[in-house]
Amino acid sequence: MASIVDSFKQLCISQDTDSPTAEVKSLVFKPKTPKSATPVPILVVALAETKTPANLIASETNSKDPRLARDDVFKSFFNVDNGKLFNLSHLLNLSASSEIQILIDQELVNRKDSDLVFKLNDEIKITGANLVDGFLLNDSNGFHKFAKIVDFSKEVESPSPQETAEAKKQQQKKKKEAAATAKIEDAKLIGITVDKALDFPGWYQQILTKGEMLDYYDVSGCYILRPASYAIWEKIQEYFDAKIKKIGVKNAYFPMFVSSRVLEKEKDHIEGFAPEVAWVTKAGSSDLEEPIAIRPTSETVMYPYYSKWIKSHRDLPLKLNQWNSVVRWEFKHPQPFLRTREFLWQEGHTVFLTKEEAESEVLQILDFYAGVYEELLAVPVVKGKKTEKEKFAGGEFTTTVEGYIPQTGRGIQGATSHHLGQNFSKMFNITVENPLGTEHPKVFAHQNSWGLSTRVIGVMTMIHSDNKGLVIPPRVSQYQAVVIPLGITSKTSEEQRKAIHESAKKVEARLLESGIRIFGDYNDNYTPGWKFSQYELKGVPIRIEMGPKDIEQNHVTVVRRNDSKKYTVPLDELEKRIPEILDELHDSLYSKAKESFDEHRVQVSEWKEFVPALNKKNVIVAPWCGVMECEEDIKESSGKQDDGEEIEVDDKSPSMGAKSLCIPFEQPELKPGQKCIKCDREAVNFTMFGRSY
Amino acid sequence: MASIVDSFKQLCISQDTDSPTAEVKSLVFKPKTPKSATPVPILVVALAETKTPANLIASETNSKDPRLARDDVFKSFFNVDNGKLFNLSHLLNLSASSEIQILIDQELVNRKDSDLVFKLNDEIKITGANLVDGFLLNDSNGFHKFAKIVDFSKEVESPSPQETAEAKKQQQKKKKEAAATAKIEDAKLIGITVDKALDFPGWYQQILTKGEMLDYYDVSGCYILRPASYAIWEKIQEYFDAKIKKIGVKNAYFPMFVSSRVLEKEKDHIEGFAPEVAWVTKAGSSDLEEPIAIRPTSETVMYPYYSKWIKSHRDLPLKLNQWNSVVRWEFKHPQPFLRTREFLWQEGHTVFLTKEEAESEVLQILDFYAGVYEELLAVPVVKGKKTEKEKFAGGEFTTTVEGYIPQTGRGIQGATSHHLGQNFSKMFNITVENPLGTEHPKVFAHQNSWGLSTRVIGVMTMIHSDNKGLVIPPRVSQYQAVVIPLGITSKTSEEQRKAIHESAKKVEARLLESGIRIFGDYNDNYTPGWKFSQYELKGVPIRIEMGPKDIEQNHVTVVRRNDSKKYTVPLDELEKRIPEILDELHDSLYSKAKESFDEHRVQVSEWKEFVPALNKKNVIVAPWCGVMECEEDIKESSGKQDDGEEIEVDDKSPSMGAKSLCIPFEQPELKPGQKCIKCDREAVNFTMFGRSY
Repeated sequence: MASIVDSFKQLCISQDTDSPTAEVKSLVFKPKTPKSATPVPILVVALAETKTPANLIASETNSKDPRLARDDVFKSFFNVDNGKLFNLSHLLNLSASSEIQILIDQELVNRKDSDLVFKLNDEIKITGANLVDGFLLNDSNGFHKFAKIVDFSKEVESPSPQETAEAKKQQQKKKKEAAATAKIEDAKLIGITVDKALDFPGWYQQILTKGEMLDYYDVSGCYILRPASYAIWEKIQEYFDAKIKKIGVKNAYFPMFVSSRVLEKEKDHIEGFAPEVAWVTKAGSSDLEEPIAIRPTSETVMYPYYSKWIKSHRDLPLKLNQWNSVVRWEFKHPQPFLRTREFLWQEGHTVFLTKEEAESEVLQILDFYAGVYEELLAVPVVKGKKTEKEKFAGGEFTTTVEGYIPQTGRGIQGATSHHLGQNFSKMFNITVENPLGTEHPKVFAHQNSWGLSTRVIGVMTMIHSDNKGLVIPPRVSQYQAVVIPLGITSKTSEEQRKAIHESAKKVEARLLESGIRIFGDYNDNYTPGWKFSQYELKGVPIRIEMGPKDIEQNHVTVVRRNDSKKYTVPLDELEKRIPEILDELHDSLYSKAKESFDEHRVQVSEWKEFVPALNKKNVIVAPWCGVMECEEDIKESSGKQDDGEEIEVDDKSPSMGAKSLCIPFEQPELKPGQKCIKCDREAVNFTMFGRSY
Repeated sequence: MASIVDSFKQLCISQDTDSPTAEVKSLVFKPKTPKSATPVPILVVALAETKTPANLIASETNSKDPRLARDDVFKSFFNVDNGKLFNLSHLLNLSASSEIQILIDQELVNRKDSDLVFKLNDEIKITGANLVDGFLLNDSNGFHKFAKIVDFSKEVESPSPQETAEAKKQQQKKKKEAAATAKIEDAKLIGITVDKALDFPGWYQQILTKGEMLDYYDVSGCYILRPASYAIWEKIQEYFDAKIKKIGVKNAYFPMFVSSRVLEKEKDHIEGFAPEVAWVTKAGSSDLEEPIAIRPTSETVMYPYYSKWIKSHRDLPLKLNQWNSVVRWEFKHPQPFLRTREFLWQEGHTVFLTKEEAESEVLQILDFYAGVYEELLAVPVVKGKKTEKEKFAGGEFTTTVEGYIPQTGRGIQGATSHHLGQNFSKMFNITVENPLGTEHPKVFAHQNSWGLSTRVIGVMTMIHSDNKGLVIPPRVSQYQAVVIPLGITSKTSEEQRKAIHESAKKVEARLLESGIRIFGDYNDNYTPGWKFSQYELKGVPIRIEMGPKDIEQNHVTVVRRNDSKKYTVPLDELEKRIPEILDELHDSLYSKAKESFDEHRVQVSEWKEFVPALNKKNVIVAPWCGVMECEEDIKESSGKQDDGEEIEVDDKSPSMGAKSLCIPFEQPELKPGQKCIKCDREAVNFTMFGRSY
């Protein structure tokens, strides 16, 4: 790779030159792509004066509605922060597994052998021959296979009347979009510049990176969890680990590698993971004769040893958990926390003598998961059971906690707890002597597995945060409070300054002592206003202001991050009131999210109401027959019924159909003879459907 | 793989047969191998009556001193627990990266096409053709390339007089060995059957697996950390994590993958790791165009982002740590905890404005590491600095805590804390504005990195455990105490039984309440004696006995695991005394280990005393010149000087030379004009040398 980068520099003109120059533009477009497909960006390299209309690009690349790419495309494909920084040399950053389409201006090719020097930007100058033949069409770097020379001066085939109507609509939409620009008017440079309501994905990326939760990484689909997010994960670990240890689960660590022979033992199970398995085939410079997989989950890693360890009913129950990372090399568009190629999670794998014990644990764990969401993250969830179609492959049944993202109106799976029945114990021969005696056949054990991943952090962030930045619920935030001294100006005497600082530091010390995660910002080089914005951006739950007036009146002013609600807290109530305020803040976040979820979880019993309700960003609770084909029909029909209106803010799934999210444990009463929402069969329960992540 | 295993079964004779049979033996030998090389086992397949003398095997395989392999060889090469369980089908378990030599009895080949049925064991019968042509010499399974047909009836070339002397010596030694058999006389089946003093590696493997600390895994060089060992790791994490958080270190998580381009950025650094890097080249069924490495350590993963995040001196110090696993695909003989292909560790990576701050942190962290060993694991260590030859590649200097394993007389590196200087900051451009102003050049940051791995568990185990099983120091053990009711016999009335159980349970409950990690074993199906052995095997620090006499006298009897010391503790002093006894136990373990280390750390100033002292299982503190060539000379000379006597119990390194372990911080005073232990140069310090892991 290094040698190619060097050669790009070598292709360029390093000295000053007197030759005439022509500016060349390099534009990156992203076409509309169904959610299930990886987007293929389009790079247009053209003379600056050449007009490159979107419809021509669309027809030349056989793609739909290409638009100028957002920063996330530049980040994920070219590893460059934004479009402004992009130049053609970044094409070399394209990951080997990515595709691209390259359109080269015919006019550029025509002039490639002239005297003209092509200017890519202020710094990069290159001859046409080097640009076109040495770089873009050079078959040693492989770009030539993506490239196509296009005559941008030609007319696009005149569209049919239908297409014209569509184009008009598009234009109107664009106008509307331009008016309601996603840019936040008075956003400061350091702050969030994208409106959550108008560009949800852009906003999400900004709050994560500017809030210093996460950074994008060199290997596509992998992200860096910075201390602000890892601290949240640690709080979740602490909470959940204590819960499971209390019921007798022990932690262990199994290797991250699985031999292919073992991995492929449970067919149903592995079928779901096979396309996403990462394979190690080399160590140092030697090829391994047999490739070794990185675990996508550890059923097949652990169960051969369960079989070895478990001999007698006295070895049961066996309850192990591990906190580790797993790898699923997904080719779908990655999204921080929600879909990443490596992610942190816990996976519990438990074995019982009886089905009853196992089933009761499945529900107990699900309650713990609901607790993580509701008690820690202030995120309301609906508990339920997955349908046969959506359950864990190879298991008996799957229970789930389901959340809801208001901006996209989509449901999101929060965590799952599976009852595996005896499927795996039969495959891996996990048996104990029959309690009736050795003359009776051995008994296959009953198993569960359950997992919760760092996805929770993404869900929490999407739900609570706002245009000022992150809002982190106080029970998981790295810091719960920041103390900021106020009222120090150029006129403040050194004595006054010291007095304010010392009062503030005393507050910090007292609260630290009482167990509040607090810090103070005593840097006089920044204004309080600047600090307010900083810590709002980072989502610190409360700020405690300490100014001359506060000192005088023996109190502090406390401001909540989520809604700027102010409290005045007398100094002698500090240790009592601050924890209360943090709890109130938690409750306030939870109520707001709950209200929104409740409002957008609508009960519908006629199919004609289904898609319109869906398009209003609702999830739907509907009577359903429980038949898998009907579920597939619902998905397809609700996808198709999207009549061209852009109902999704997230353009990765403009016409996604509704999946079943779960069969809620809390069931409305079915009317006698109630029909399924979609087909003519009788309904067997109410099922929650929705577009989803 | 599966298909080959099936085909071995298919090769065999499944029905009863009347044909004459001949027994075939399959013996595995292991030759003497220098430590740096991977041992290549020798499989001899011969008629039972054929004599297969070791010297013939040696000359046919061009190897030195082949001996019947121990269980560890069967485990690591054939994934079978011991030699008794081994049969030829296990040859298929041989990892693809392993080599083997196969010697086939000429006599067996002569008779392969006869009517004889060859009997491998009671169950496996096979025709000669299938055994020789279908399996051992079949080129589709690849064994043919390792195989050689040998006429065992031929005389070995008559040895030279020297060789005869050597052979005699060997024979004498073997006799001695046979007498002092490593088997423990009265070992029960469930307990340890190998003597720590006589077969240290065999003993180590047994206490780990029978003590349920660890299990061997399907992928060579990887091991399963079972709850008993993972709990120790959790205690270490808790301790160390609190220490580093107190000095402002924050936890984060960086991806496990590194692109080759980034990995190879720091040349000196990567040179040390390159041969051990595992490469992912495939995902699902698609080849990645560019292979991606799994981190062997995270310098190159993290520092590009440090460069991005650090802009101003206000961003410093930056102190991040992660608890993760790393992969180093070593081809040396793996050993549980000490040398494994994946291992858990923490890696801290910190950045400072000044060299002074960085250097002071290096030592602070080293103190924490010494604390892990001494305060938690009761293992004494020597703190010091590594020589230039042994320091971390790419860094400025390395500090270390060094331990000592009495049975092998070898030193062991405990944990290292590196000062990287500006080497990495220059490579990765980690700079801040010059505090003197922007007109001055940017300042490169000063960096450290430091790591402690699960190796600590292996060191602790080797040092404290004994022929009864594990001895786990109380501050890290999963359980600190077990309560066992005594005096229940067939004559005990139900009332008495209940009274004893209830008294014991009360003790358990009280101590649990007071924070002791305790459990009780109230299963009346096992005798107290059986239970004693069980929990001694598992290393529970103390057992608390509660029998009728104890109840009567209002006390409990407490027995220490390490030395069976007994205490009588009045019931009303329980909460006070038990923690004290645990502390005393810790101190007792530490003192014993310290005494042994102190005794075997000898100061030597003449070269002629060096090797003899080394051969008495000592590490050596000697005046040294500090010159790298001299260090290499010491290693080579101390290796050679091993005059054939087997000074190592661990036969993996029979004639290993002495490496420098560290330059201890605590230095004896150098005499004026003191010469180096090895060469004519003047000594610059005392350095600790030893054979090592």
